[in-house]
Amino acid sequence: MSELANDTLLRALAREPTPYTPIWLMRQAGRYLPEYNATRARAGSFLALAKSPALATEVTLQPLERFGLDAAILFSDILTVPDAMGLGLYFAEGEGPRFERPLRDEAAIRRLAAPDPHAELRYVTDAVREIRRALAGRVPLIGFSGSPYTLACYMVEGSGSADFAALKTMLYARPDLLHAILEVNARAVADYLNAQIEAGAQAVMLFDTWGGNLGAAAYEEFSLAYSRRVLGQLVKRSEGRRVPSILFTKGGGQWLEAMAASGADAIGLDWTTDPARARRLVGARVALQGNLDPCAMLAPPEMLRRETRRVLDAFGAAPGHVFNLGHGVLQHTPLDAVAALVDEVRAYSTKLRRLAGTG
Amino acid sequence: MSELANDTLLRALAREPTPYTPIWLMRQAGRYLPEYNATRARAGSFLALAKSPALATEVTLQPLERFGLDAAILFSDILTVPDAMGLGLYFAEGEGPRFERPLRDEAAIRRLAAPDPHAELRYVTDAVREIRRALAGRVPLIGFSGSPYTLACYMVEGSGSADFAALKTMLYARPDLLHAILEVNARAVADYLNAQIEAGAQAVMLFDTWGGNLGAAAYEEFSLAYSRRVLGQLVKRSEGRRVPSILFTKGGGQWLEAMAASGADAIGLDWTTDPARARRLVGARVALQGNLDPCAMLAPPEMLRRETRRVLDAFGAAPGHVFNLGHGVLQHTPLDAVAALVDEVRAYSTKLRRLAGTG
Repeated sequence: MSELANDTLLRALAREPTPYTPIWLMRQAGRYLPEYNATRARAGSFLALAKSPALATEVTLQPLERFGLDAAILFSDILTVPDAMGLGLYFAEGEGPRFERPLRDEAAIRRLAAPDPHAELRYVTDAVREIRRALAGRVPLIGFSGSPYTLACYMVEGSGSADFAALKTMLYARPDLLHAILEVNARAVADYLNAQIEAGAQAVMLFDTWGGNLGAAAYEEFSLAYSRRVLGQLVKRSEGRRVPSILFTKGGGQWLEAMAASGADAIGLDWTTDPARARRLVGARVALQGNLDPCAMLAPPEMLRRETRRVLDAFGAAPGHVFNLGHGVLQHTPLDAVAALVDEVRAYSTKLRRLAGTG
Repeated sequence: MSELANDTLLRALAREPTPYTPIWLMRQAGRYLPEYNATRARAGSFLALAKSPALATEVTLQPLERFGLDAAILFSDILTVPDAMGLGLYFAEGEGPRFERPLRDEAAIRRLAAPDPHAELRYVTDAVREIRRALAGRVPLIGFSGSPYTLACYMVEGSGSADFAALKTMLYARPDLLHAILEVNARAVADYLNAQIEAGAQAVMLFDTWGGNLGAAAYEEFSLAYSRRVLGQLVKRSEGRRVPSILFTKGGGQWLEAMAASGADAIGLDWTTDPARARRLVGARVALQGNLDPCAMLAPPEMLRRETRRVLDAFGAAPGHVFNLGHGVLQHTPLDAVAALVDEVRAYSTKLRRLAGTG
């Protein structure tokens, strides 16, 4: 494998000094990009796109051709693991993900097994290898998975939901069954991320999209405990470097201290969390990633640049910040906004470091 | 006006000792009640129900006939104020609230004026008077409104939304326009709640359903600042007693200290917040209301009772807790669950006080 031309992401995740704040965007290969929509149309569906290593490689690289982003993230879905378990992932047009066979009885749960990441999920590791070849060392590649809890939300509910009543009913009525699912998920996600690392992922991220729908004690018991287990089982070094991990819980701002003690190298913040407060709570233990409101990208460029500076000021010039949005890029985000954002992060964070003498 | 037979709610909101923890439920008059559905069918629509003082009185009292609840809450909608401003509130079948004429241009915003609560909103104050007569002093009546920010979310967006992109675009691009709306809303909500108090509301609650979609600084600037203004303008005493106020921000768990300094007598907690942490953060300044996960009501009674005890233990036996759910009662909540909840809160909180010697 070739040396990295740009390793600012990995250095920031290790809380080492970087000349500027690295930036990548959740859902940076997405529907706001016309070339993404063209490739998706060719593929026929989102899932066909995600399951084709060649097309997944193509769209993973698309945002890097346009913008000076400091990382690529594997184009895939957070629900590939339960799909490989046989639940039948599909997307109804204009809606979120759904499963054909959600887990609604004990027998189905007892049958659940962690898939072999080198068999059922081979299309993902193939994509990772192909993306690494195509990147040729320009920037690092981030692998990812949904967290065990977030996978369970969709596996039990069968789809997204305003309140996840089916999942919550299981949580309160049969916590043993939910734990049984989470045990399998944790093993499956650890195997899956390790296979991605083995195939060439240089950092990994756990997306806990729904952990924020839990109470504080339930978050610890049903979400964080299993994310911690995954993080503890991850391969820590590859190609002679540390493979850093990022844990993101949307709506997790109340539990930052616990998240910082999970074993993750970095914590992803959604846009509701004050970065200065987050830094006070987690100290120097972990790097922080985030957290511009994705809706700020819809404002005129000058307003967006002002908001971007506000976020950079709040994180400060000390090492250990990776710029990102607080959630995925919205579909109607203008291309010019992404260009302005990347430009402002580069310019202003460079200046901040010069002023602080930490560059 | 008659004396209150049961004033535990008002005493708990004043952080005075009570023999047990009072309980009421957000959306306690709602679709989980067969008699509510019957009255609503008679009314023809939700809005016709809310706009008829006689029918609003009928459904406000329905949950009190079934369950030993310690408060009534005015049956109404959080969006009556912008409806009275002329935006045209309506409900599409099976969907949330919508406005026929959302605020999409500066001219419409500049024309916005606070409605006279004794004219356009007369049906609400009439309902308050009629409910008070029907209650005949059994329990206190809580009045309410959406917060200025939450009203603005719907007024600009025209409906509920996953990301409130139209509202957020205004917030980032034309904050002056959003402030103009919020100024009018704050005046309107203060007038409206004072009219409810004058008509007989014995406590009032501000529902900030969408404040949790803001970043920390934006929450202070666009939501809390205007809720604070409303709270500061409220009539503080009526019928010889303090009229306590409750501020509830869904997703506000990161800003409890700021909320506690807003002038509200009590802070409503959603189910994600750890009650013990909340009490540590706010000290003895305010009472706390909450915060059972509404989904726990879907579990078998024994599990629900265990969760209920867990919530009561977390709040502790010290004065200043009003039991509630962390959000509204879900439509598919069994009637038996509400009965079990009310029974468990009464029995277990009485026991807790005996053990702690604070009864």
